[in-house]
Amino acid sequence: MSRGRTRRVVITTVTPDGVRRTPDQLIVEEPMTIQLDGTTVSTTMRTPGHDFELAVGFCHTEGLLPGAAVTGVRYCGTGPAAETEFNVVTVETGGLAPTPTPRLGPTSSSCGWCGSDQLDDMCARLTPLPSTEPMPLELLGRVPQLVAEHQRLFESTGAVHAAAVFDREGAIRNVREDVGRHNAVDKLVGAMLLAGELPAAGLGLFVSGRASVEMVQKAWAAGFGTVLAVSAPTALAVDAARRGNVFLAGFVRGDRFNVYAPERLPT
Amino acid sequence: MSRGRTRRVVITTVTPDGVRRTPDQLIVEEPMTIQLDGTTVSTTMRTPGHDFELAVGFCHTEGLLPGAAVTGVRYCGTGPAAETEFNVVTVETGGLAPTPTPRLGPTSSSCGWCGSDQLDDMCARLTPLPSTEPMPLELLGRVPQLVAEHQRLFESTGAVHAAAVFDREGAIRNVREDVGRHNAVDKLVGAMLLAGELPAAGLGLFVSGRASVEMVQKAWAAGFGTVLAVSAPTALAVDAARRGNVFLAGFVRGDRFNVYAPERLPT
Repeated sequence: MSRGRTRRVVITTVTPDGVRRTPDQLIVEEPMTIQLDGTTVSTTMRTPGHDFELAVGFCHTEGLLPGAAVTGVRYCGTGPAAETEFNVVTVETGGLAPTPTPRLGPTSSSCGWCGSDQLDDMCARLTPLPSTEPMPLELLGRVPQLVAEHQRLFESTGAVHAAAVFDREGAIRNVREDVGRHNAVDKLVGAMLLAGELPAAGLGLFVSGRASVEMVQKAWAAGFGTVLAVSAPTALAVDAARRGNVFLAGFVRGDRFNVYAPERLPT
Repeated sequence: MSRGRTRRVVITTVTPDGVRRTPDQLIVEEPMTIQLDGTTVSTTMRTPGHDFELAVGFCHTEGLLPGAAVTGVRYCGTGPAAETEFNVVTVETGGLAPTPTPRLGPTSSSCGWCGSDQLDDMCARLTPLPSTEPMPLELLGRVPQLVAEHQRLFESTGAVHAAAVFDREGAIRNVREDVGRHNAVDKLVGAMLLAGELPAAGLGLFVSGRASVEMVQKAWAAGFGTVLAVSAPTALAVDAARRGNVFLAGFVRGDRFNVYAPERLPT
């Protein structure tokens, strides 16, 4: 049984000078199933580590815990470690969380939902964040470099996303790396929930890739007033940020970046 | 109702020279639900377009169509276009495909599965690909540039993945761009299935990001003997490629790249 986050593999490098075999470090991905009070709510491919935070963070950012406190988190297995023991995590609320609705399976004749339904759904369960003093603009362009120093798995494997919590003084409060960018965010949010640090008022969430609508939803659910993505957001992510009063910046290129939400910076 | 793949939004650019408002193009993501003979099998955030190919490709690469032919593909709605009409696609096999097993919901006391179970599952339904003449190594390093000329959505939005089919002469046979990299691959595979062009023997699959185990699984299911990823693969992706006899290359940097599977190049 290996609980490592990287694995050493012998590969072949091809260059104009020739072909040679060499050892390489690869990032580990393993499936993890998340249960809430005994009901499976998700199976995600994740990099092992911080599994409890991932499970708790997922339940929180997906809106599965409205008002319910987490009373316990545990792995499925309790005896001597089997290989699969660490691949199911159960979040317990003593049944206080509502029974999750399965999203797959036989369906009605409904024509499904679209992006604006999804925004309406978010707005129905999340209130727009209170306006706070925006982060200093000069700080935002520097955050990617500040986080880079902590991206140890990326440095060794080149195949992993990072998410980080930063404050307005530029301190990097916490960093998580994972093959799944959603997992990296959920691990941060779960850690804050378990430490009693939510909502994340006044703090910024950094993500190393693009900002999809789900990343903005997760940030909004956790109360991050600022989201900074290295790459560009999607159109729906911008809509969600504007509705949720989340300050959304991205497409950082050196000391240049874009602000997507709000539509107009306060003057 | 908009079926566009990009949307124009006014944003704010921040540079050392100041702050100004400017129009920008953002990539569109909208949820699409995939049904197989009336049972919902997935909801994915995708960039609209090539929706039938996406639905068919997903069903094929996830192993939901063992031996069953696709007899029809249609949108949910048939009347005047409602905004949600294009967000549910039904793949029909006349009930010949086995009923999909829901992956979420109440669970038994099983401790779940791990990566090696996942590989065993793949090996149970997919036979290793027959050995074919490898792609010329000098070609592989050039493929990312050859595909780049076709990445129109990336050029305008900077936030979209690409997948492409290439042959051993370096011709780019087909390219798809999507906010989800899995979707881009499924769109290619679905197009080939609907055109009667599977298995993709002797062809290569290019992906613009990393190679996760699911990307290798999809390539293997479609019969691509070669997978080339711009970035690095995960450890489980390398295991899958070695078991499936898929030639897996990646981490392309100019004229240098790595070969992860097979472990030793044939001499």
